[in-house]
Amino acid sequence: MYAENNESMKNAHPHIIGYEETLEGREFFAAISPLDGQTLPGHFCNATETEINHAAQKAAIAAPAYRNATPEQRAAFLNDIVRLLEERTAEIIRICDLETALPETRLQGEMGRTCNQLRMFATQITDKTFLEEIHEEALPDRVPPRPDLLRKYIGIGPVVVFGASNFPLAFSVAGGDTASALAAGCPVIVKGHPLHPYTSQLVGNCIRDAAQNTDMPDGVFSLLHGKSNRVGQQLLAHPAIKAGAFTGSQNGGRALLQMVNQRHTPIPFFAEMGSVNPIVIMRDSLEKNYEELASGILNSCTLGVGQFCTNPGLVIIEKSAVQEQFLKLLHEIVCELKPGPMLSAEIANNYMAMKRAIASRHIVKIIGKAQSEGKYAEGVPCVMACRASDLLQAPEIAEEVFGPSTMIVLAEDKNEILQVLSVIGGQLTTTLFCEKENLPQHQDLLDKMAEIAGRVLYNSYPTGVEVGLAMQHGGPWPASTDSRFTSVGAQAIFRFLRPVVWQNFE
Amino acid sequence: MYAENNESMKNAHPHIIGYEETLEGREFFAAISPLDGQTLPGHFCNATETEINHAAQKAAIAAPAYRNATPEQRAAFLNDIVRLLEERTAEIIRICDLETALPETRLQGEMGRTCNQLRMFATQITDKTFLEEIHEEALPDRVPPRPDLLRKYIGIGPVVVFGASNFPLAFSVAGGDTASALAAGCPVIVKGHPLHPYTSQLVGNCIRDAAQNTDMPDGVFSLLHGKSNRVGQQLLAHPAIKAGAFTGSQNGGRALLQMVNQRHTPIPFFAEMGSVNPIVIMRDSLEKNYEELASGILNSCTLGVGQFCTNPGLVIIEKSAVQEQFLKLLHEIVCELKPGPMLSAEIANNYMAMKRAIASRHIVKIIGKAQSEGKYAEGVPCVMACRASDLLQAPEIAEEVFGPSTMIVLAEDKNEILQVLSVIGGQLTTTLFCEKENLPQHQDLLDKMAEIAGRVLYNSYPTGVEVGLAMQHGGPWPASTDSRFTSVGAQAIFRFLRPVVWQNFE
Repeated sequence: MYAENNESMKNAHPHIIGYEETLEGREFFAAISPLDGQTLPGHFCNATETEINHAAQKAAIAAPAYRNATPEQRAAFLNDIVRLLEERTAEIIRICDLETALPETRLQGEMGRTCNQLRMFATQITDKTFLEEIHEEALPDRVPPRPDLLRKYIGIGPVVVFGASNFPLAFSVAGGDTASALAAGCPVIVKGHPLHPYTSQLVGNCIRDAAQNTDMPDGVFSLLHGKSNRVGQQLLAHPAIKAGAFTGSQNGGRALLQMVNQRHTPIPFFAEMGSVNPIVIMRDSLEKNYEELASGILNSCTLGVGQFCTNPGLVIIEKSAVQEQFLKLLHEIVCELKPGPMLSAEIANNYMAMKRAIASRHIVKIIGKAQSEGKYAEGVPCVMACRASDLLQAPEIAEEVFGPSTMIVLAEDKNEILQVLSVIGGQLTTTLFCEKENLPQHQDLLDKMAEIAGRVLYNSYPTGVEVGLAMQHGGPWPASTDSRFTSVGAQAIFRFLRPVVWQNFE
Repeated sequence: MYAENNESMKNAHPHIIGYEETLEGREFFAAISPLDGQTLPGHFCNATETEINHAAQKAAIAAPAYRNATPEQRAAFLNDIVRLLEERTAEIIRICDLETALPETRLQGEMGRTCNQLRMFATQITDKTFLEEIHEEALPDRVPPRPDLLRKYIGIGPVVVFGASNFPLAFSVAGGDTASALAAGCPVIVKGHPLHPYTSQLVGNCIRDAAQNTDMPDGVFSLLHGKSNRVGQQLLAHPAIKAGAFTGSQNGGRALLQMVNQRHTPIPFFAEMGSVNPIVIMRDSLEKNYEELASGILNSCTLGVGQFCTNPGLVIIEKSAVQEQFLKLLHEIVCELKPGPMLSAEIANNYMAMKRAIASRHIVKIIGKAQSEGKYAEGVPCVMACRASDLLQAPEIAEEVFGPSTMIVLAEDKNEILQVLSVIGGQLTTTLFCEKENLPQHQDLLDKMAEIAGRVLYNSYPTGVEVGLAMQHGGPWPASTDSRFTSVGAQAIFRFLRPVVWQNFE
């Protein structure tokens, strides 16, 4: 599995452990072009247990000093990361494009978002109304007397962040998890995603350099490479680690959560694991807008070759006069679409296998699919359909298929829609399309949608997650491990903060 | 183990399952007087699996309706519980005194606190600044456009609350966990503590009656009795349950957390498991105030026969000229103290056994203890001492001894104090005594104290937990399962709320 030769060792990139660079292991790997399967230049190596322990110990030593850094000092650190990312954008995007095959415009946008996230946290932590202190003054004459109490947040301690394959910038080395943890005053160890290791290295260098520029303690940031699951598991098991954050598949998230549950000392572990993000279209809306809806859904569903966690994988439509026209139009549009390169051959193969398994069920019909171009790691857009009554008997056909496909669910009435929403599990988002004047009739649907999701949308598409104060990106299991927290937006910082109350200090 | 006879069955009290009462099981138990070991009147029965499922299903059915109740409606429900508790206080306290042997004045105070907690949550949920909605208006002209986003909290779903033995009112059936969960819009199933079942029944009746008076949905509240661990375990394992709250021992909390970790669908489980609540006394303070400190510490340590979770079980003193006088004074005071009845013979036996095991170590010295009166379930106050250097080699002697004992740790210098604080694990509270003018020298101690605890006190005692907006009652493991949350004070509600963002609804 691992290339072991002098060439690998000569070219291999080191792990970043605080202000050191190390390369002790012998399990080498390289990135693979998703366009043609060619090995890309540059070798990387699974971090060894010694390197993992070293990074964790450095983070533990850095933690008290970094916790005591003022919000302004931490903000300066975050802003200097932005400065370096912007300075080195061209090189980072060039490499990232090679490793992920994501188009340059998308990566430019993602770099912008990455920098905006860092800037947002830099602003929020210096805003006293956001991380509000609560002060209850002493009431010495009350019976019993009230002591002076001052409640403040402090960082929870060293955080392990897992880079995500599908957001090589915005949810990887300097992404939202890292930004929110660093903003909270927590040292961060990133386990880089093996599909874009060189991108990770370049971004990791920016963070390390910014830490040095702004006099942050050695150990405030480390980047460990790893293709083996062992690296992440050993990191999460280390006693110095106080929290974890992961964006990825349900299988990956579940496996890591099991690791965390075996720790002697429990820690919060936030995994955002995606979902099918059901869209419900009521009769009135479909009859009025079916053309717009057909193209809107396929656009949302195939964005980024269907590799967004808010990708709509289930579209439940209420029976209507235009149902056949809608399906026909979906057929026409999807057949004209082009396949796109997915992030890796493995992801593309999984997509194909899951799609085939579902399409092979006699209760599922293929409405249409794009023409394969026979390319390496291609993701071929596809629309399937089934009856709601069949889905209720076999809810496994509604499981997430990571890629550019969607399942149209034909429901007889609202009651069937409610039943489908009840069996599909927790979601990042749910969406309702209906005419404004009929919205008040659908409080029952909205209640159910809020019950199963962290974000409920009206007459719009779930892809495109606004990064701000109000965003909630998370939801009931299995969309995330803890529906009370979010991985996107300013509130993401609360995953890594804990309150301490100071009694009788005034 | 279980009395099975007609007498038990005739007198047995039913479980409260929504607006029904049931009694299907045959595993009977009764409360025992902690004063003399006599069986108290009234029998109770372990809830059966059928009853557990029934309560969980009722809670699941009640959840959507109760979630949609307005804050004002939920506040009316909470306030009606208070009205009934106050109306029935005399009877509740009479029974509670029999079951717990806690003195009437203490129980009067605890009833006041219980009612205040319910009133506080009723007030907070109708205060828009507390459960703040975040609204980010649409910016259609921005590139890309920002959608309208409105972030609101909703209840997480049915919550299982475990009644605590040491707070038969304030952290039992209508205690802080129940009050915060009901305030959050979550149905509650209480697993009553078997040491005070009749108290639980009387309080449960108040909640049930208040729910009916204020037209809350059937199933918003249930009370299941249980002496067997099975009852709580089956409740926590039920798929309809969305969160759990527990106050009790580390062993109990760990066992339940393991159950939760085995669920197919993970849920948040908040356990507050107590701690040794170290007090650090610096030389200046000891030399100036050793007399006051000796009586203050013993008072805090023996309050409620040492059965508070904030009971100071470790007192670390910096070497000083008055060390011997301080120990001598502790000896004199503790020898004059009277034993008190603990909550049960089992708790008293555990206390005695743990105390003996620790005192038998050659590195531990008994400074003094009160005279046993040979009574049933008595807790005999005791002061032990050890050197910090010995404790560092054998940190298990610093483990929590639930009862009226404390360990004085003799430290050579601040460095040893810091080392002791580093090995004793997470705490609910840490306390520093030093003279005001020297406080700035001890930032290192305060940093360490905040790192390991949820509440840091200055020149005061940790027992007595203020119930307000600023309180943090929780701390790093093993003091609690999640240091980001509190079980006391207004913030306790956030354990049971999750944000949902509504996109594009305006």
